[in-house]
Amino acid sequence: MSNSKMQLAAVIYGKDDLRMEERPVPLPGKGEVQIAVACVGICGSDIHYLQEGSLGTLAIKEPFVLGHEFSGTVTSIGEGVTSLKIGDRVTPEPAAACRKCEICLSGRYNICRNRVTFCGTPGFDGALRALCCHPANFCHRLPDSLSMEEGMLMNILAVGVYVCERACIRPGSSIIVTGAGPVGIAMLLAAKASGATKVCITDVLQHRLDFAKSVGATHTLLVKASDDPQAAATKVKDLMGCEAETSIECSGAEEALSMAILATKPGKVVAVVGTGNTNKTIPAFHALTNEIDIYFCFAYKNCHEIAMELVTSGKVDIKPLITHRFKLDKALEAFDCARNRQGMKVAIACNDY
Amino acid sequence: MSNSKMQLAAVIYGKDDLRMEERPVPLPGKGEVQIAVACVGICGSDIHYLQEGSLGTLAIKEPFVLGHEFSGTVTSIGEGVTSLKIGDRVTPEPAAACRKCEICLSGRYNICRNRVTFCGTPGFDGALRALCCHPANFCHRLPDSLSMEEGMLMNILAVGVYVCERACIRPGSSIIVTGAGPVGIAMLLAAKASGATKVCITDVLQHRLDFAKSVGATHTLLVKASDDPQAAATKVKDLMGCEAETSIECSGAEEALSMAILATKPGKVVAVVGTGNTNKTIPAFHALTNEIDIYFCFAYKNCHEIAMELVTSGKVDIKPLITHRFKLDKALEAFDCARNRQGMKVAIACNDY
Amino acid sequence: MSNSKMQLAAVIYGKDDLRMEERPVPLPGKGEVQIAVACVGICGSDIHYLQEGSLGTLAIKEPFVLGHEFSGTVTSIGEGVTSLKIGDRVTPEPAAACRKCEICLSGRYNICRNRVTFCGTPGFDGALRALCCHPANFCHRLPDSLSMEEGMLMNILAVGVYVCERACIRPGSSIIVTGAGPVGIAMLLAAKASGATKVCITDVLQHRLDFAKSVGATHTLLVKASDDPQAAATKVKDLMGCEAETSIECSGAEEALSMAILATKPGKVVAVVGTGNTNKTIPAFHALTNEIDIYFCFAYKNCHEIAMELVTSGKVDIKPLITHRFKLDKALEAFDCARNRQGMKVAIACNDY
Amino acid sequence: MSNSKMQLAAVIYGKDDLRMEERPVPLPGKGEVQIAVACVGICGSDIHYLQEGSLGTLAIKEPFVLGHEFSGTVTSIGEGVTSLKIGDRVTPEPAAACRKCEICLSGRYNICRNRVTFCGTPGFDGALRALCCHPANFCHRLPDSLSMEEGMLMNILAVGVYVCERACIRPGSSIIVTGAGPVGIAMLLAAKASGATKVCITDVLQHRLDFAKSVGATHTLLVKASDDPQAAATKVKDLMGCEAETSIECSGAEEALSMAILATKPGKVVAVVGTGNTNKTIPAFHALTNEIDIYFCFAYKNCHEIAMELVTSGKVDIKPLITHRFKLDKALEAFDCARNRQGMKVAIACNDY
Repeated sequence: MSNSKMQLAAVIYGKDDLRMEERPVPLPGKGEVQIAVACVGICGSDIHYLQEGSLGTLAIKEPFVLGHEFSGTVTSIGEGVTSLKIGDRVTPEPAAACRKCEICLSGRYNICRNRVTFCGTPGFDGALRALCCHPANFCHRLPDSLSMEEGMLMNILAVGVYVCERACIRPGSSIIVTGAGPVGIAMLLAAKASGATKVCITDVLQHRLDFAKSVGATHTLLVKASDDPQAAATKVKDLMGCEAETSIECSGAEEALSMAILATKPGKVVAVVGTGNTNKTIPAFHALTNEIDIYFCFAYKNCHEIAMELVTSGKVDIKPLITHRFKLDKALEAFDCARNRQGMKVAIACNDY
Repeated sequence: MSNSKMQLAAVIYGKDDLRMEERPVPLPGKGEVQIAVACVGICGSDIHYLQEGSLGTLAIKEPFVLGHEFSGTVTSIGEGVTSLKIGDRVTPEPAAACRKCEICLSGRYNICRNRVTFCGTPGFDGALRALCCHPANFCHRLPDSLSMEEGMLMNILAVGVYVCERACIRPGSSIIVTGAGPVGIAMLLAAKASGATKVCITDVLQHRLDFAKSVGATHTLLVKASDDPQAAATKVKDLMGCEAETSIECSGAEEALSMAILATKPGKVVAVVGTGNTNKTIPAFHALTNEIDIYFCFAYKNCHEIAMELVTSGKVDIKPLITHRFKLDKALEAFDCARNRQGMKVAIACNDY
Repeated sequence: MSNSKMQLAAVIYGKDDLRMEERPVPLPGKGEVQIAVACVGICGSDIHYLQEGSLGTLAIKEPFVLGHEFSGTVTSIGEGVTSLKIGDRVTPEPAAACRKCEICLSGRYNICRNRVTFCGTPGFDGALRALCCHPANFCHRLPDSLSMEEGMLMNILAVGVYVCERACIRPGSSIIVTGAGPVGIAMLLAAKASGATKVCITDVLQHRLDFAKSVGATHTLLVKASDDPQAAATKVKDLMGCEAETSIECSGAEEALSMAILATKPGKVVAVVGTGNTNKTIPAFHALTNEIDIYFCFAYKNCHEIAMELVTSGKVDIKPLITHRFKLDKALEAFDCARNRQGMKVAIACNDY
Repeated sequence: MSNSKMQLAAVIYGKDDLRMEERPVPLPGKGEVQIAVACVGICGSDIHYLQEGSLGTLAIKEPFVLGHEFSGTVTSIGEGVTSLKIGDRVTPEPAAACRKCEICLSGRYNICRNRVTFCGTPGFDGALRALCCHPANFCHRLPDSLSMEEGMLMNILAVGVYVCERACIRPGSSIIVTGAGPVGIAMLLAAKASGATKVCITDVLQHRLDFAKSVGATHTLLVKASDDPQAAATKVKDLMGCEAETSIECSGAEEALSMAILATKPGKVVAVVGTGNTNKTIPAFHALTNEIDIYFCFAYKNCHEIAMELVTSGKVDIKPLITHRFKLDKALEAFDCARNRQGMKVAIACNDY
């Protein structure tokens, strides 16, 4: 649903084809709220769509508005919405599950196959525009103490919380995180908040490792795509003085997944968050004889409120993650900045906040 | 095994009958080490033996040396011991499992029914003497950075770690701890190290609550044994602004267990650590319709090294727990101090350290 | 919603006050279907309402139609229903969760606190009438191979499946079931379908034990309410030749719960299904030192389809459970039969089938 | 330890080099028993050693006696053994863990890295001889009702039980087993004993599928190594009428693992038992977006007694698995038979039984 008004939006048409164009302002449908978008973060998956025209097996078929990590203010209420009111500051979960299917009823709504929306992914318009709509039930009210920028970051912190929970990060544990981009950093912060005392993070960019160190990584290792996974695993274990209790793969790189499997303690878990290639080769015999299980983690469930609580309580300081800021009309520049991986999270303001 | 030398020991004979007397110096048997005891903590269970002549259904039959929370230095090595050497500073797990039975092989050695020793409990002499012996496999080498007093405290911190693990304390969670004695405080510290952001602790003594607040409790509630559990539960929930994700009962009091069950979120867990009466009445219908599970937690397993790591890494500051210190020859005074519950942990030095 | 037509219904007014009276025929609201009720089972909770005017802390405030275990045929479709059509044979889950709250999203919809309905419990009319309405999403389509009577029994078999899942019944295990009423029998059948090789069932009625034996119990023990739980536990262990891997309390009796705790292997679980008194006394010290956890199980979730699959596949033969049959106009006689516990499940036909 | 007597043994020297030769009779060391070997099964891993000179990354360095699936009678008792006596019929767990390391204490002794022995694998002599020795603690006494051949088969049935437990096979579930060799068949039997109602098994040999059908497979699919995994997954799902609740990969083939991942329900598990290549390529993006976890399962723990109970109770009929029988002096013929995969389990009698 939309009225006749138009607004600027960042629309992805295909590989290397992101356009700023006028799009109709949407009106909230049943169960939805309309949101004046404050801040949108550029996610690694956005960059995949821009650089490859796809994310894994998900290809762009029709152009759609990008942007799924965001915060904003409710401007209009759709039919039947009672949980929110105009003026509420919110931070949405981008994927809204059907809540009716077998998978939803089993408590794993993040992998629902009948999603109502998954904003900013093929088939669903996202948040890179002044006004967007979202199911009210998947919008979380932002506490007064959290800024719009922190609100936007709740999405990746929730991923961190989810993975730590799935992988049972326990206090006093030693963790490997492969990939020091924003998701890897969120993982580091969540792991430390869960009690991890050693976190070794790896990346191909030294400035990302430096950033990781500044926010709590106890060990860092600069790696190259051409590194032998076994040699890299040995280096990481030497650095930490032990094998990992849990490893978390955030880079999407096949070599990183192999390294993680080889550097993890027998009987423990490698959690995979990073996307990357459709197929990946793993050291299966080592995994078998050491019972290294692989848990694949997609988005998150029931973790948004926890992410907010971690920041509100002071347990996690998430703000430093935003290193670059742009206005919506400079979104193309923002994407250039993000693809060059010069900083951490690149934020785009769609309204003043 | 013992040679002819004698040494002073604190021996419990029955209710209100703790005696300082000369006992033979033990020599290490096969697989054991002899330890020059540094520091011994008085545990709530020691007080039960002293005040009631029993702990639950475990009664004193023969006199035995008390003391199971301790640290010390290896002075002699028994046959076949390769993991330790003379001079090593150690902190033992008091209960040494058989490691051969079905229960041990299943990974739950803390409830082994064929224990080799459970030092300082009926049938097994404890550590309140200058020299004692213990199975080497259940002695953990103390890192240089940990003091003998911290080493002694690893036992209760390990209990805290174990319970947090069993009860799956997750980051951002709200926890109730009933009982602000040393075990309750260890639980508070472990829960916060595991990411809990709200911890409400209850006790019948205001000075214990004040102590809890000084080491990180976010909320405290002074309770009386005569309080109605439902009213107390309402007070705790009002204080925290929510139900508990997990409750941990450390007081041994029946009312506290009831209150904990009534104040916990549906589908969540009450972990029971406190001993107390042989039988306890619980609000079973409420527990049933809300699926509040009860996990009973006895001692710990595989948590001693984690406790040490938490202190070494700075994640937990355990030192403040010791509020009173005595020499071995003043052990009776130390027990008076502990039974009066004037402070937190009462420590007894059996050798200089 | 109802039209002007009236129909006979079994309405509970309070203790010992069940009345057959004319009630309006309900029309399906949004998301509901109207069902021509085939077969209704009398549940232990129905008997509690009749004998005590309450179930635990749930008291009858307003009269309501009893009956929540049932099957029937869809006769009318409410607005928005697409999953069912007129003529579909269905078996409903009596409690319809909101599917929107935190508890539902976490996958534990059986303890949702915002239930849309819980038919046949205080506040919600049940199925003891010719036509009733129920949310379509909680009605399961009955396979052709299942009869209406089997369909009615899916509710208690689903409870059995749920408890076996919660309590992790493993193949080759030895199980105790306390209480050989219909729920205990469903538990026995589900446990055997889950691979249990020894199931010892206890009851105060010999004819129920005989029934249990005829459907697969390997051991039975006649108990009295006055039995000492420790002595009863010893008898059960002697009978089985071992402790229980899991015990399942279905009787509601305090003594049975105590016995179950005392007869279970250290580190294992007692699942509680039976209701009974608001408060119950348990052997807490034994449970603590042996880490016998207590899992409370309420209704079920995600188990209705599994129950149907177990019967369709021939893994479970559920039909023998129905021992007495009545027509709706003889419902008062049916309740007399059920409260006298002369047989197993008493079924009431509300329409021909 | 050995005395001067010699006996015939089947010794593997390398690829395609299995020799029958005279070897000294071993005497039981401390904690060991000497066993008159009754029946030895040829395992897939034995065939790997014979055909490739290695199993994954484990290469033959020194010649060793093959054979790890076996049963026999105790003929001599080593120092300190109290759990067994001469004349006891036993079935051993081939891998004897140290029971002292962190991994053993955590309950996962099957992946202990300090194994005392792993009979019949590089470094440790196995059972293909008249007399061998084994740690008493890892020998299970065979009930009178089990034959020596059934005793020998307890090893693979225990693997089946273990995997079903790790993968949480629930009653009423639909399972895929890839590979219909003896391990696949054991998995099928264990899954059915755990309550699975549909088991679809795949293999490249029709006669193995026919065998599987004769022992309870509900669906079978003949596959080729060149099949497209996605197409094969679609076929399997069409056959079963649903996705798999759990898939169990027993073939070692990379294609089978991919197929299993693609045919499993979102949020569920693929358990890997088959060895095969050192590295394997998996459909990682599909696994990620559907959260298909991979559990690697090596040998088993705490399942030997359960396997025996399943057969003793009649829940599992394991005998049909043995399709070919040889005497020890015909061991080379037995291996020819096994490598040609003409039947199921090939058994070698080392003494009369």
